[in-house]
Amino acid sequence: MTDDTTGQSAPLADVRTLALYGVGLINGSLGLALRARGFAGRIVGVGRRERTLRAAADRGAIDSYGTDPSAAADADLVVVGTPVDITVDVIAELTQNTRPSTIYSDVGSVKAGIVTECAARLPDARFVGAHPIAGSERAGVEHASADLFDGAKCVVTTGPGADEEAGGVVRRLWETVGSQVITLPADVHDVLLAASSHLPHVVATALTHVVCGKAADGAQAAEFGGGGLRDTTRVALGSSEIWTPIVVANAEPVAALAERMADELLQLAGRLRRGDAGAVDAWLERGRELRAEITDGI
Amino acid sequence: MTDDTTGQSAPLADVRTLALYGVGLINGSLGLALRARGFAGRIVGVGRRERTLRAAADRGAIDSYGTDPSAAADADLVVVGTPVDITVDVIAELTQNTRPSTIYSDVGSVKAGIVTECAARLPDARFVGAHPIAGSERAGVEHASADLFDGAKCVVTTGPGADEEAGGVVRRLWETVGSQVITLPADVHDVLLAASSHLPHVVATALTHVVCGKAADGAQAAEFGGGGLRDTTRVALGSSEIWTPIVVANAEPVAALAERMADELLQLAGRLRRGDAGAVDAWLERGRELRAEITDGI
Repeated sequence: MTDDTTGQSAPLADVRTLALYGVGLINGSLGLALRARGFAGRIVGVGRRERTLRAAADRGAIDSYGTDPSAAADADLVVVGTPVDITVDVIAELTQNTRPSTIYSDVGSVKAGIVTECAARLPDARFVGAHPIAGSERAGVEHASADLFDGAKCVVTTGPGADEEAGGVVRRLWETVGSQVITLPADVHDVLLAASSHLPHVVATALTHVVCGKAADGAQAAEFGGGGLRDTTRVALGSSEIWTPIVVANAEPVAALAERMADELLQLAGRLRRGDAGAVDAWLERGRELRAEITDGI
Repeated sequence: MTDDTTGQSAPLADVRTLALYGVGLINGSLGLALRARGFAGRIVGVGRRERTLRAAADRGAIDSYGTDPSAAADADLVVVGTPVDITVDVIAELTQNTRPSTIYSDVGSVKAGIVTECAARLPDARFVGAHPIAGSERAGVEHASADLFDGAKCVVTTGPGADEEAGGVVRRLWETVGSQVITLPADVHDVLLAASSHLPHVVATALTHVVCGKAADGAQAAEFGGGGLRDTTRVALGSSEIWTPIVVANAEPVAALAERMADELLQLAGRLRRGDAGAVDAWLERGRELRAEITDGI
């Protein structure tokens, strides 16, 4: 009765049952954050690994859980938190038990492929893509935190034929946990995130290969790294289970940016080999200025 | 009389006067760390900017200061903390006032050029190169800290004809402030640091240009950056006054590594364009493993 007695003043009062499919860092933090912000509905965890679900329940991120898709049957809203290559498969499975009114969303870092595939395979499903820009290289509900989304951006997708009512629910979900919600077409999101997130990830990985790889006698070089090497390569610790599907789904923008990054480095190498200290200095100084401009913004 | 009464048990008791030329983050932290560890000698700051020296004195990093090179006249040991392209000029100037027994060292991030130039121009100067691997993108004595070197590596250079006694004093200096001292030939140091420090710096700068540069509509993309973009580009905030001389002095190893990094990125772009998810996954996973191996080491 909790959700009835608190009435319309409770956040997301129209969501009496929320299902979180895959309760890792993001969905686990979402459950904790909703509870901390007074969400009065029921939160059901669904997923394949019972141990993960039990850990999420122990942390208070979910009220109950089940490993069978039918555990989400009563959900008004389902948020899928899996690697992006299986998101639509999961939704297809869950829709066999849920009501037609059930709204689906996700938390994946790449959006166009999911939106397009979902519309093609499940034209009747009420899907709205979302991407909370938060998290870290640490995966799992054990790192979940109620304030992970506080002040963070969250992109909610829109486009021709979008379900406005469903979009409103998903936007309110993320506003409830403190996010700054931005509505964008899925393909615009993907191009922006290719630069701001996917490129930094592959650059950190490439740098790790060069500095730490066997071919470079790198184990020795890495021992002389300080905070600069540590921070510049940190995101390379992210799970490949999560990141491979992201960069593969966003292959064209990421490849184009990786090529531009290679070109920047080859130009620098040319300036160094020519001993053109003035050009090196102008390039470093302009980079410092550009980085200083974003320091407070992210 | 302090240094006499504490006697040989005080750290570096044979250094009765230490001169720090250029009291920024590194030399400022060195002064604070020596005081915190019980160094009983006098610490004199020398440099061009009186305001910086006064700030260092106010923080307790130095006991007294002067903007004239003669302020270092009584020094048993001089540590030069300037951009690496003027280190030997500074030493040449100071040697006109100091005794022949005075030992010179530095804190620069690249060593072979300084060691070679110093031996050629000042064959009688007792110079030992050093590089404490510590610091951050934040410059200036206002960010100095007594524990900056605690547990950090410090390379002290050696080579044919090295002054063993002077090398011992410099090694004890850095051991006194908690560093793990490693003795290496200058050119070996430079190749190792090209990979562990100089490459990460130019990679962070190149990434900043690609993500945040005007040509990329980047101001918009950077707004969607999270902790990954912030950390991967952080070192690009470093002063070009410090970094240009470093990468120019170490041009050949840095250029070669920048080219290898470009090659890694072009290979990845090819795998993405071919849709070779297996190869992308193997590359990301191997990068994650390599990064995990160094997590505790740096």
